[in-house]
Amino acid sequence: MKKVITISREFGSGGRTIGKEVAKKLGYEYYDKEIIEKIASESGLSKSFIEENAEHAPGTNIFSYAFVGRNENGESISDYLWKAQCKVINDIAEKGNCVIVGRCADYILLDRIDCLHVFVHADMEKRIDRIINLYGETNEKPEKRIIKKDKKRKANYKYYTDRTWGMSQNYHITLDSGVIGIDKCVDVICNLAKDLK
Amino acid sequence: MKKVITISREFGSGGRTIGKEVAKKLGYEYYDKEIIEKIASESGLSKSFIEENAEHAPGTNIFSYAFVGRNENGESISDYLWKAQCKVINDIAEKGNCVIVGRCADYILLDRIDCLHVFVHADMEKRIDRIINLYGETNEKPEKRIIKKDKKRKANYKYYTDRTWGMSQNYHITLDSGVIGIDKCVDVICNLAKDLK
Repeated sequence: MKKVITISREFGSGGRTIGKEVAKKLGYEYYDKEIIEKIASESGLSKSFIEENAEHAPGTNIFSYAFVGRNENGESISDYLWKAQCKVINDIAEKGNCVIVGRCADYILLDRIDCLHVFVHADMEKRIDRIINLYGETNEKPEKRIIKKDKKRKANYKYYTDRTWGMSQNYHITLDSGVIGIDKCVDVICNLAKDLK
Repeated sequence: MKKVITISREFGSGGRTIGKEVAKKLGYEYYDKEIIEKIASESGLSKSFIEENAEHAPGTNIFSYAFVGRNENGESISDYLWKAQCKVINDIAEKGNCVIVGRCADYILLDRIDCLHVFVHADMEKRIDRIINLYGETNEKPEKRIIKKDKKRKANYKYYTDRTWGMSQNYHITLDSGVIGIDKCVDVICNLAKDLK
């Protein structure tokens, strides 16, 4: 039984929904936005700052320019945030029986053998349908929203892990939720989590 | 039921074994080296030439320099070989109920909706063990053999498809056979092939 399941996902692929369902089926804790709060209390940084910066590679957004200074340990604000994020994710994993969505958890927990690392993706058309259904229309075209969001996740992942986001070798299993369907993705992940030592 | 299963794989990951087992379980035809013979009879090129060049991106090996000329249709030898390969793969898929290993079949059959596209990988240590068990020791270090082989596959895939070999978005499912195990990979693929429309 794998005690920790990390789910990385393209925006609009249904990765969060899959994560929630997997947690429900396995009776695991589900962590997504809750992690932000934990990082805030760990680091003393504000939730909004963490939310903004945990999604951006340092230097890719104008806000980070205000924080290029270093603290008394010589750490930049991004190093400091990353350290707090690693601590929070490791603490959650140590408790076990959990699903963690996003936040480079696959990389942070690389050395643990009780994890199943998952990546979920889908083609653009399916993701556009999904985000319009879930979040409604905005002034920004859905395709542009998706590309922007994924670009940030990719840059953030590259910066902190030096790996390519979405490369199959980073994960134990990757799934095309558009072709396989949300429910079947949930089943495949739950069965693997149960079957693997 | 998916009628065509393509399996791309890292060298030493057990992708061929998985492909054979999947074909056996589903009662499908299995195509791997048989494709070389079909391309030979389709193109009139020799098996050894095809074997050498189907694995190399044009220009990455010394043999291809001997064939940089173009035929009466203005095609280079690589274009000609690729066209024959596409025809053979499409013909096999058209017959249905088959497993095709390698040869960029995931890309060639991109427009068919009756396919399940799979990529299999494993970490270096597991692959080294596997190739020593299967093929024995050679003068060349196993790690070097693996890196060389994968480098060629990657370059070949990039040249013909303009996509990155191993990127999860190219496949419906990717599996780490080292962690999941060969038998369970076979089960997951067979179940998906049966369950999906």
